[in-house]
Amino acid sequence: MYRTHTCGELRIADINKEITLAGWIQRIRDFGGMSFIDLRDRYGITQLVVDENTDKTIVEQLEELGREFVIQAKGLVRERSSKNTKIPTGEIEIALTEIKVLSPSEVPPFTIQDDTDGGDDLRMKYRYLDLRRNVVRKNLVLRSKMAHAVRTYLNAQDFIETETPVLIKSTPEGARDFVVPSRMNPGEFYALPQSPQTFKQLLMVAGFDRYYQIVKCFRDEDLRADRQPEFTQIDCEMSFVDQKDVLNMFEGLTKYMFKETLNVDVDDFPWMPYSEAIEKYGSDKPDTRFEMLINNITDLVKGNNFVVFDSAEYVGAICAKGCADYSRKQLDGLTKWVQRPQIGAKGLVYVKCNKDGSFKSSVDKFYSQDDLKVWAEKVDAKAGDLILVMSGEKDHIQGAIGELRLEMGNQLGLRDKNIFKPLWVVDFPLLEWDEESQRFHAMHHPFTSPKVEDIKLMDTEPGKVRANAYDLVINGVEIGGGSVRIFDSELQAKMFKLLGFTKEEAQAQFGFLMNAFKYGAPPHAGIAFGFDRLVSLFAGLDTIRDVIAFPKNNAGRDIMIDSPSVIAEAQLEELNLKLDLKEKE
Amino acid sequence: MYRTHTCGELRIADINKEITLAGWIQRIRDFGGMSFIDLRDRYGITQLVVDENTDKTIVEQLEELGREFVIQAKGLVRERSSKNTKIPTGEIEIALTEIKVLSPSEVPPFTIQDDTDGGDDLRMKYRYLDLRRNVVRKNLVLRSKMAHAVRTYLNAQDFIETETPVLIKSTPEGARDFVVPSRMNPGEFYALPQSPQTFKQLLMVAGFDRYYQIVKCFRDEDLRADRQPEFTQIDCEMSFVDQKDVLNMFEGLTKYMFKETLNVDVDDFPWMPYSEAIEKYGSDKPDTRFEMLINNITDLVKGNNFVVFDSAEYVGAICAKGCADYSRKQLDGLTKWVQRPQIGAKGLVYVKCNKDGSFKSSVDKFYSQDDLKVWAEKVDAKAGDLILVMSGEKDHIQGAIGELRLEMGNQLGLRDKNIFKPLWVVDFPLLEWDEESQRFHAMHHPFTSPKVEDIKLMDTEPGKVRANAYDLVINGVEIGGGSVRIFDSELQAKMFKLLGFTKEEAQAQFGFLMNAFKYGAPPHAGIAFGFDRLVSLFAGLDTIRDVIAFPKNNAGRDIMIDSPSVIAEAQLEELNLKLDLKEKE
Repeated sequence: MYRTHTCGELRIADINKEITLAGWIQRIRDFGGMSFIDLRDRYGITQLVVDENTDKTIVEQLEELGREFVIQAKGLVRERSSKNTKIPTGEIEIALTEIKVLSPSEVPPFTIQDDTDGGDDLRMKYRYLDLRRNVVRKNLVLRSKMAHAVRTYLNAQDFIETETPVLIKSTPEGARDFVVPSRMNPGEFYALPQSPQTFKQLLMVAGFDRYYQIVKCFRDEDLRADRQPEFTQIDCEMSFVDQKDVLNMFEGLTKYMFKETLNVDVDDFPWMPYSEAIEKYGSDKPDTRFEMLINNITDLVKGNNFVVFDSAEYVGAICAKGCADYSRKQLDGLTKWVQRPQIGAKGLVYVKCNKDGSFKSSVDKFYSQDDLKVWAEKVDAKAGDLILVMSGEKDHIQGAIGELRLEMGNQLGLRDKNIFKPLWVVDFPLLEWDEESQRFHAMHHPFTSPKVEDIKLMDTEPGKVRANAYDLVINGVEIGGGSVRIFDSELQAKMFKLLGFTKEEAQAQFGFLMNAFKYGAPPHAGIAFGFDRLVSLFAGLDTIRDVIAFPKNNAGRDIMIDSPSVIAEAQLEELNLKLDLKEKE
Repeated sequence: MYRTHTCGELRIADINKEITLAGWIQRIRDFGGMSFIDLRDRYGITQLVVDENTDKTIVEQLEELGREFVIQAKGLVRERSSKNTKIPTGEIEIALTEIKVLSPSEVPPFTIQDDTDGGDDLRMKYRYLDLRRNVVRKNLVLRSKMAHAVRTYLNAQDFIETETPVLIKSTPEGARDFVVPSRMNPGEFYALPQSPQTFKQLLMVAGFDRYYQIVKCFRDEDLRADRQPEFTQIDCEMSFVDQKDVLNMFEGLTKYMFKETLNVDVDDFPWMPYSEAIEKYGSDKPDTRFEMLINNITDLVKGNNFVVFDSAEYVGAICAKGCADYSRKQLDGLTKWVQRPQIGAKGLVYVKCNKDGSFKSSVDKFYSQDDLKVWAEKVDAKAGDLILVMSGEKDHIQGAIGELRLEMGNQLGLRDKNIFKPLWVVDFPLLEWDEESQRFHAMHHPFTSPKVEDIKLMDTEPGKVRANAYDLVINGVEIGGGSVRIFDSELQAKMFKLLGFTKEEAQAQFGFLMNAFKYGAPPHAGIAFGFDRLVSLFAGLDTIRDVIAFPKNNAGRDIMIDSPSVIAEAQLEELNLKLDLKEKE
C-alpha cells in the first residue's frame, strides 16, 4: 500500500494520526532550519514539514529532491501554527518521519501551476504534463461527470445504450469520410462514421424504442479553430414520439446536467421559431443572455435622399444601452469592425440619443431630429443610448448586425459565462436553395419530416416548407440538433424528388435505409448533442480543445505522439496500396 | 402523442381505462366472429380484441393488416375471460375502438419470434429485423445495463472516465493496426488503437490517479470464430497501487456487476498461481465450476515396460466420477476426440474402477491390479469412477488433458451456465521463449513489472521470473487481464535488454512513453476487460456476436450494409493513394 490518505483528505480531525501520503512535489520552500514541501496529487495539496526535530537523514534527502519528483512520505498529522484558509487541508501539516523517492523527475519544460509559463505548442507536446495542472484536469473531471449524468438520466428513462459500428461503409456523398483499407478484402475500404444516423434509425426499425450512445464521430475536413477530426456526440433516438415529446425529454436531460454538475437551475426552455431568431438576433443560434434585439427599420428610413438606405433591401438597427457617450474613436473602431472581411459590411450608421433629448447621428444631413426620434421609438432607445444601423442585402445584413450585437454584448459585459440561457430553435426551413447547383438541399438531412400543415406547400413553394427540425442553443452556441424523421415511403419519395434525385439515385444512396422502412418503421425522432462543445460551455471555455484529453491541432496532427506518420512499405503492400504523392510545384 | 402506455404496462388495475397503444403486430388470430391481435413493442405484448361489439370499420380494417405492421390502437382495458399467466399483461385485453396504420410491412424474410425460421446469413442481412426478436434484443439490453453498472461503480470510486484518441500512431510492431490515410497530411497515416495502453499510462503520469473507459479497439487480423475486427474493452488504470489493491478494486466491480444485472452473489475470488492453473487444470484459464483436477502420475507409471509411458516426459490423469460404465463405443469416441488435430494426442489410456473394487484398463498387460490401485489412490478415484490418462511432451499433454477435462465436464453436465466461478490467475511468467526468433518475448507487454523477489533471476534464469500480471477468469473464459507496470527506468532498461532490444530500438519503439516517465511517473497498474466476452458470459451465450448490435462476419464483412466496399477513384486520388491489387494466380 502506497498511501493511507490522498493529498486532499486530511483535516483537523486527523491530528496525531500516523499517515502515509504519495504524490508529486509541487515546490519546496527552504527557510534555513525549516523546510516545507507541498505534496500534490489529483485530490489536493498537503504541506510536509522538515524542522529541527526531523530525523537528520530526511534533512539530507531534501537535497536530492526537486519539483515533480514522486515521493512517498510518512509522518504525523499536526495542526499548523499559521493556517491556510484557501485549501481544504490548510489547517494541518505533516511532521515527516520518512521519505522515499518513488520516481525522480527531470526539470519539466514548463511550470506545473495554474498560471504556467509554457506556450501552447510546448504544452501540447508535453500534454501529459499539461494535464497535471489543476485548471486543465478539472475540465476532464467535469467531462467525466457530465457523461455520467447523461447516462444516469437516460438509463432511468429506459434508453438502451447501444454501440454502433465504427468500421462502416463509405457513402457516395461521403467525400469527408475517413476511410480504412481492409487487408482481408483487397481493394475495399471501410469508412469511419460522421454520425451513427443510419444505425440509430435502424435501431428504431428494430424496435429498440429508445436509444442513446456517447460516441466518437469522424470528419476529414479542413479544421477550423474549434473543430477536431474526431469528436464526441451524445446521440439519441426515440420511437412513437412527436417533436414535443423529444424536446421535453432532452430539455429534462439538459436541466439534469446543469443541476448535477454545476448545481445550476435553468428556466424552462423557450421555443423560438427559426424566422424569429433570424429576425431578432440575426442568427439561428441566438445568444439570449441579453436583449439588444435587432429592429427592422427599413420602412422608416426610405425617401430621405440617403441613397445608401434608399437602395438597401434591408435596414436594421440595434440599441446599445448607455453608449451615447461612445467616443469618435470607439465609433470608428466599430465601423472598422463591421468592415472586416468576416462581417463584410460597407459601413455603420450611428445615432446618439443625447441626455438632453436631442440626437446626434452620422446621417444628420438626411434625417431630421423628428426622423431620428421615430427611429429611437422604434428601437426603444432612451436618452443615453446609442443606435447602430446597418443596411444592404437582407440575409447578409441580418447576419452582420447579429454579429455586431454579439460584439456590443461583449463590450458591455452582457455575456456572462456563469449565466446560462438555453432555448429551442424550431421550425427550421426544410430546404435551402443552393445557387451553385441550382437546386434545393436538405437543411438538416433528407429524412427530416416537413410540418404536416406545410406539406401542401411542397409542390408550390418548397422554399417555404418548415421542417420538424430543432436545435438546442445555449448562450449563442449550437449544442445539439435533430428532427422528427420521415417514416412514410410516399412522403420520402416526394422529398427525394424535391431534392432532385431520380428514383435510381435515391435507391443507390439511401436504398439501404429505405428497404428497412418497408418492414414496419415506427414514427421516430432524435437529436445529437456536440458533447465536446457542451462540456466546453459548462466549463466556461472558448475552445473545445481544453475539454479533450489528447486533442489534435488545426492540421489534424497530434504533436505529442507525432501522428499521423508514414507507415512501412510492407504494410502498404499488405493493404494492396501504393502512395501516389503529387509532385510539389 | 402516439401512446398512453407501452405494450408491457397494462394490468388488472387499469381496467376500464381508455388507452392508446402503438407497436408491431405480432400475429392476428381469427376465430370467425372474434379476432385477436397481439401487439408488440420493446416492453411486451398486449392482446387487442375485435368481437361482435366492435365497430364495423375496424372489422374491415383488419383485412388490410398483417404481421409487422406498425399500428396505433385505441380502446378500453378489460379483464380477460381466459387469462394468460405467462405474460405480465396476461390478465387484461383491449376492446378496440380505433385502429390506425402508422406503417405497413411487407412479409418479413423470416418470422419475428424467439424460435425463428431464419438462418444465420439471412438474419445478419436483415439484422434490424433480427434485433426485433426478444431473445436477441435482451442481450443488448443486458449489455447496456452492464455498461451502466460498470460506470456507476467506478465513478463512485473516483475514477475519471477519459476518452483517448481513436486516430493514433501506427507502431513498428503494429502489423495488425488498421490504418487511416490522412488527406491533410499526404503520404501519412493514422492507426486505430489495438488498446489505449500508452494513453492510459500517460494519464497516470498526468496524475489522473484513476482512469477508466469503455472503449472500442481494433485489430486487423484473421478472425477466428469468436473475434471481431472492432471490439469493446473496459479499460482501467490506477496509480499508487500494488497488485492487491488492483485485484480488490476490480473484484468489487465484478461482484457489483453480477449483483446489479443478474442478482447473483459470487464468492470471494481465489488467487491461483499460473503454475497451479497449468498443473491442475492444464490451462491458464481454468474452469473451476467442477473439480476433476489433473494429476501428474509420471513417477507412478515408469518401469513397467510400457514404452509409451516410459518414454513420456509427462503422464497425467483425470478422474471422471461415475463413468466406469462407459461403453467401448464411448471410450473409442473419447480416444478419437483426443486424436483430433486440435488436441493432437496419440492416444488415451483408461482405467475403469469397477464396483467390485477391481480395475479394468487398456494397459492391463503392463500394470497389475496393485499398480492401478496406486494410480486410483493418487487421483482419488473410487469404485465406479473412470481414470483417463494421457502422456507425452509435458506442455502439450497438460493442455490436451485440460481440454479432455473440459469435454468430460460437458459430457457430465458439470458446466452449468447459471453457475459463475470467478478467480484471479496470478504470477504469470514475465517472459516466454520464442523458438522461431530464439529470444524471449514479453508474455503480457514490455512494461509489465517482474515480482520484486524474482528480479535477481532476471540475469540468471529469466524464464523463471514471475510477473505482477493477472487475469480474471470466469468459467474457463479469460475475461480480463492486466499488470503492475514498470515505472523505474533502470528496471525498464533491463527488461528491454532481456527482450533483445538495443537501446536505439527501445527508444524508437517505446521512447515516447519512456520520455514521459522521466518527469515523475507514479507506481501504477491496470486491467482491461473484454466487454463483449463478459456480456456474452453473463447472457449465457457461446459467442460474442449476439451481444453486438451490428457485428461483422468472419471475413470482417458487415453483410447488412455490405461493407467494406470500393471507393471512388477521386477519393483515392485525394488521399494520394493508388490501388495495387495483386493478380490472382
